[in-house]
Amino acid sequence: MTYPAPLARLIQELSKLPGIGEKSAARLAFHLLKGNLDDVASLADSIGKLREQIGLCPQCFGFSELVAQNGDPPLCSVCRNLQREQDKICVVEEPGDLIAVEKSQEFKGLYHVLHGTISPLDGIGPDALRIKELLERLRHGSIREVIVATNPTMDGEATALYLSKVIKPLGVVVTRIARGMPMGGDLEYIDVVTLGKALEGRREI
Amino acid sequence: MTYPAPLARLIQELSKLPGIGEKSAARLAFHLLKGNLDDVASLADSIGKLREQIGLCPQCFGFSELVAQNGDPPLCSVCRNLQREQDKICVVEEPGDLIAVEKSQEFKGLYHVLHGTISPLDGIGPDALRIKELLERLRHGSIREVIVATNPTMDGEATALYLSKVIKPLGVVVTRIARGMPMGGDLEYIDVVTLGKALEGRREI
Repeated sequence: MTYPAPLARLIQELSKLPGIGEKSAARLAFHLLKGNLDDVASLADSIGKLREQIGLCPQCFGFSELVAQNGDPPLCSVCRNLQREQDKICVVEEPGDLIAVEKSQEFKGLYHVLHGTISPLDGIGPDALRIKELLERLRHGSIREVIVATNPTMDGEATALYLSKVIKPLGVVVTRIARGMPMGGDLEYIDVVTLGKALEGRREI
Repeated sequence: MTYPAPLARLIQELSKLPGIGEKSAARLAFHLLKGNLDDVASLADSIGKLREQIGLCPQCFGFSELVAQNGDPPLCSVCRNLQREQDKICVVEEPGDLIAVEKSQEFKGLYHVLHGTISPLDGIGPDALRIKELLERLRHGSIREVIVATNPTMDGEATALYLSKVIKPLGVVVTRIARGMPMGGDLEYIDVVTLGKALEGRREI
């Protein structure tokens, strides 16, 4: 005897989640067996309904809350908000990145989520991303600046470079978020590439 | 704008789980949004049905699979199995500990799950545990040895001591699992209490 079947199945399913190994999965499952019954029911309900309730905004491809089932997803709250600066688009890789930028409260414009990066090694070219849709938005003429906020990784940098190449001909300014020392970081322990970027990007104070 | 409401609710619920902070919860939620739809539905279903499908064995209080809904929970597969040694009971704190002992394949007897330890500081006395039920099982007379496999923690040791005090008068042998060096451990890095127990519990070879 090991685990009763329903428990074994739950543990197996939980261990498919990112960052959750078999031991964590078992601990979570035991918690779900002992924890408050309403909490557990509510978690199951939230997971079960998630995909019906959240879709992608048809303009920026960030998350958008679906009002009615079977309806087309409405514009997300950022795209709907006419108070936001309508002439700037911040381009990010994933919906989670959009939310991170929003939390910084430093950007009041619009967004565009690529859903990935160009990655020749993985066979992901520009066509697999939402770049076509971005260029379409730019052709309408009201956007003056595109801020490329892809991650400072090899693929993120390559994607930024590609975007600048295809966007500049449209007469739109393309900028890239600064790469440098993270706040609270320590020069002694930071990697050389970051330190190099921090020196290269120095500004007069 | 931060998270759409259904996503925020899921993140909040996930972060109630043990060992899952807000960042991990967000990562899990994003995975559930992007991952295979069938996997997500199946996870929701497993969590939702878990508590209907798993109950506690009325004899040993380990997990037992409920065959029919609304029926009384049947004996677990260990208690039902007459091939197991019917004269030994291994006492553990939690159902997960029972499964851990089973996986070691070193024990072929029966179990009893206390569902906790005596913990005066937290106001948990013997009455809050399944000790009454254990003593009841012992009074039937067929058990010759009780192996106390509570954790080697302060509370686990106190519980073991208490059990030996109440069980011995019934004429049943009470043993305690060995405390010593874990396999693969290193004398240089092990704590002094464990090393002391390992020396104290030495055996001729």
